[in-house]
Amino acid sequence: MAIITLTSDFGLKDPYVAVLKGAIYAELEQATIVDISHLISPFNIHEGAYTLKTAYQHYPKGSIHIIGIDSEKTPEQPHVVALYDGHYFIGADNGIFLLIAPKGNFEMLITIDLPDKTLTPTHIFARAACHIARGGRLELLGRRVQTVKEVKNLTPSLNNNENLITGNVIHVDNYGNVVTNITKNWFDLIRKGRAFEITVLNYKFTKIYNKYSESINFDIANEKRNEDGKKLALFNEAGYLELAIYKSNLQTVGGASSLLGLRYPDSVFINFID
Amino acid sequence: MAIITLTSDFGLKDPYVAVLKGAIYAELEQATIVDISHLISPFNIHEGAYTLKTAYQHYPKGSIHIIGIDSEKTPEQPHVVALYDGHYFIGADNGIFLLIAPKGNFEMLITIDLPDKTLTPTHIFARAACHIARGGRLELLGRRVQTVKEVKNLTPSLNNNENLITGNVIHVDNYGNVVTNITKNWFDLIRKGRAFEITVLNYKFTKIYNKYSESINFDIANEKRNEDGKKLALFNEAGYLELAIYKSNLQTVGGASSLLGLRYPDSVFINFID
Amino acid sequence: MAIITLTSDFGLKDPYVAVLKGAIYAELEQATIVDISHLISPFNIHEGAYTLKTAYQHYPKGSIHIIGIDSEKTPEQPHVVALYDGHYFIGADNGIFLLIAPKGNFEMLITIDLPDKTLTPTHIFARAACHIARGGRLELLGRRVQTVKEVKNLTPSLNNNENLITGNVIHVDNYGNVVTNITKNWFDLIRKGRAFEITVLNYKFTKIYNKYSESINFDIANEKRNEDGKKLALFNEAGYLELAIYKSNLQTVGGASSLLGLRYPDSVFINFID
Repeated sequence: MAIITLTSDFGLKDPYVAVLKGAIYAELEQATIVDISHLISPFNIHEGAYTLKTAYQHYPKGSIHIIGIDSEKTPEQPHVVALYDGHYFIGADNGIFLLIAPKGNFEMLITIDLPDKTLTPTHIFARAACHIARGGRLELLGRRVQTVKEVKNLTPSLNNNENLITGNVIHVDNYGNVVTNITKNWFDLIRKGRAFEITVLNYKFTKIYNKYSESINFDIANEKRNEDGKKLALFNEAGYLELAIYKSNLQTVGGASSLLGLRYPDSVFINFID
Repeated sequence: MAIITLTSDFGLKDPYVAVLKGAIYAELEQATIVDISHLISPFNIHEGAYTLKTAYQHYPKGSIHIIGIDSEKTPEQPHVVALYDGHYFIGADNGIFLLIAPKGNFEMLITIDLPDKTLTPTHIFARAACHIARGGRLELLGRRVQTVKEVKNLTPSLNNNENLITGNVIHVDNYGNVVTNITKNWFDLIRKGRAFEITVLNYKFTKIYNKYSESINFDIANEKRNEDGKKLALFNEAGYLELAIYKSNLQTVGGASSLLGLRYPDSVFINFID
Repeated sequence: MAIITLTSDFGLKDPYVAVLKGAIYAELEQATIVDISHLISPFNIHEGAYTLKTAYQHYPKGSIHIIGIDSEKTPEQPHVVALYDGHYFIGADNGIFLLIAPKGNFEMLITIDLPDKTLTPTHIFARAACHIARGGRLELLGRRVQTVKEVKNLTPSLNNNENLITGNVIHVDNYGNVVTNITKNWFDLIRKGRAFEITVLNYKFTKIYNKYSESINFDIANEKRNEDGKKLALFNEAGYLELAIYKSNLQTVGGASSLLGLRYPDSVFINFID
């Protein structure tokens, strides 16, 4: 049976997550429910989209992802199921769907319209998810639509001379590492093999690693190396440019965020040298 | 098989929750375990009761709810299983059972008395839960009793003229919304159709909504409306009077708690106008 | 099927835990995954080892424990599966294995070497765990080795006269209780029935309880007793000497950590009186 994942800004102290899980189990005793994150900042669909986008790809095709962020249904904000990349996404049409799928290449979009009008968003999402998990047809949940709401997004830009990328910090992680909105794919497309220099505040990077330990010279014995705390740029597992501190520990070494003094949505520049 | 839920003040960093889950899985490989919350404030049975009460109703009848708050067995505080509303509640008799079921209308109350006296509360609760989940009889867990401990509870009061309710803030949620101990059922019973005015500090509300978005006039275009941050009173999904901020974000708009300056156990007044 | 547990410093906000779970479910749809803790301080293998050591023993033999702390593979730090005490531990060879099994009595040690060299640590751990859960042979995951890396550990010491133990605070829990690295087994071995005095800062304890409520005299009526906040020394469920406050609540009474002013890695002394 399909996995049902949950991404929300409900927090972990209140009963809200448990209510949603109860509503799912009450309909589908054998459900497999996985928490993506419930610590998304309240109403922050950008953070929610980044988090879910990074995680969902690791789940089997056919998985169902409930988004509990700004999820109330209003005249301007219907509930939607989006089929995208072989996965089902359920949430309110608040702009998050196009943040997850920026090209808008959805396989299907349905506005949810259940007969019972007294249901809360939590129970509507649970019911829709269980319907899909049981193999029910999407069209039975409501009406097919062609588009979803678009919100302004922080996207990196390229100047006319095509030698300067301006991006932004979109996320600071648990280690204090700084994630930008510049993806490896887009960077490679623009770079065309040129040398480059990344500038954030007073720091410069001229190399982008593929993992943390690549930045360390293991030919030097460990005791003499002492590179804990080394600053580096790398493409993270989700394919985003990240500014990191090797083995960063916010309590001792400090993370990139605190060392570099960066936070959402600070600017990051990449100059290409022709 | 019955679901086993966990509500505790164990926190999420320490191994305590995992020890409890391990003890359950070791007895019952196929258990379905769901976390309600482990971030209840230490020893706060009032917060634990509110959280579990809100959540348990969404679970199937027959579910088993372990309460890991102030759970040590002492000569004055036996371990108890309460069957109430078709659900099983397992915990120490510290007063929480009557907070969950204020009318005391339990279907059965058993003090747990297992043969093995070396078991920790965690393992006693796990063993009792697994016994029930396997369909074992409650009476085999110990001795039937008629009552459980009662603790002073913050209940709303009504003056002699029956035109003033005095209630209290019992919970501030993840969004900064303020939950009071005044339920919709009790309010409706006393109101008898009269107009009313809710007063908290210097703020007044004369309407109670049933959901956040009801407070917004969607006839006005979104751009001109700008009602994010609007204060409102509503009955929340659990049936309690809540003072909220529309789309409250503690970091930007601020939640009701921070805007109104309210916290546990501040007073809330409702005047009825005859 | 074997349970797979997760212990990490990934935190609960980022998508990292969900990526790991997705990688496991993608390989093994029927997996039972249990979180031990994801709030280990970044790179703190000592805290991770204490947490996992306390928890794993409550899981069935054959359980598989993934350790996501400092988990990158480097020329100096291979990925390892350790079979110890009938349980499988998967992580990077950063020293944590000998913190979990101080005597080094592993039943088997394998360095993981999978054919696909592009896999991230997360996916390598997921693949190894699923291989073991499916009953696959350990030797198929890589090469058998004899030892793992040893790191300096905070171990308690005994003076030449064998009448003074010097230990350290290794953990402060959710209630503010202070856990030391002095185990009941070792203490009993050295004590040989002698009287003793535990000294931390200006506080002295001459008795060690086996549970919190043992320190309370229940012959005195509850109202007159008023022992909430009483300081005591006890051996906790994991067998470590703990300094605690009876019913400690960090917000009102204060926990032992705040009352005594202790934190990692402060010293604790035990004098034996001949």
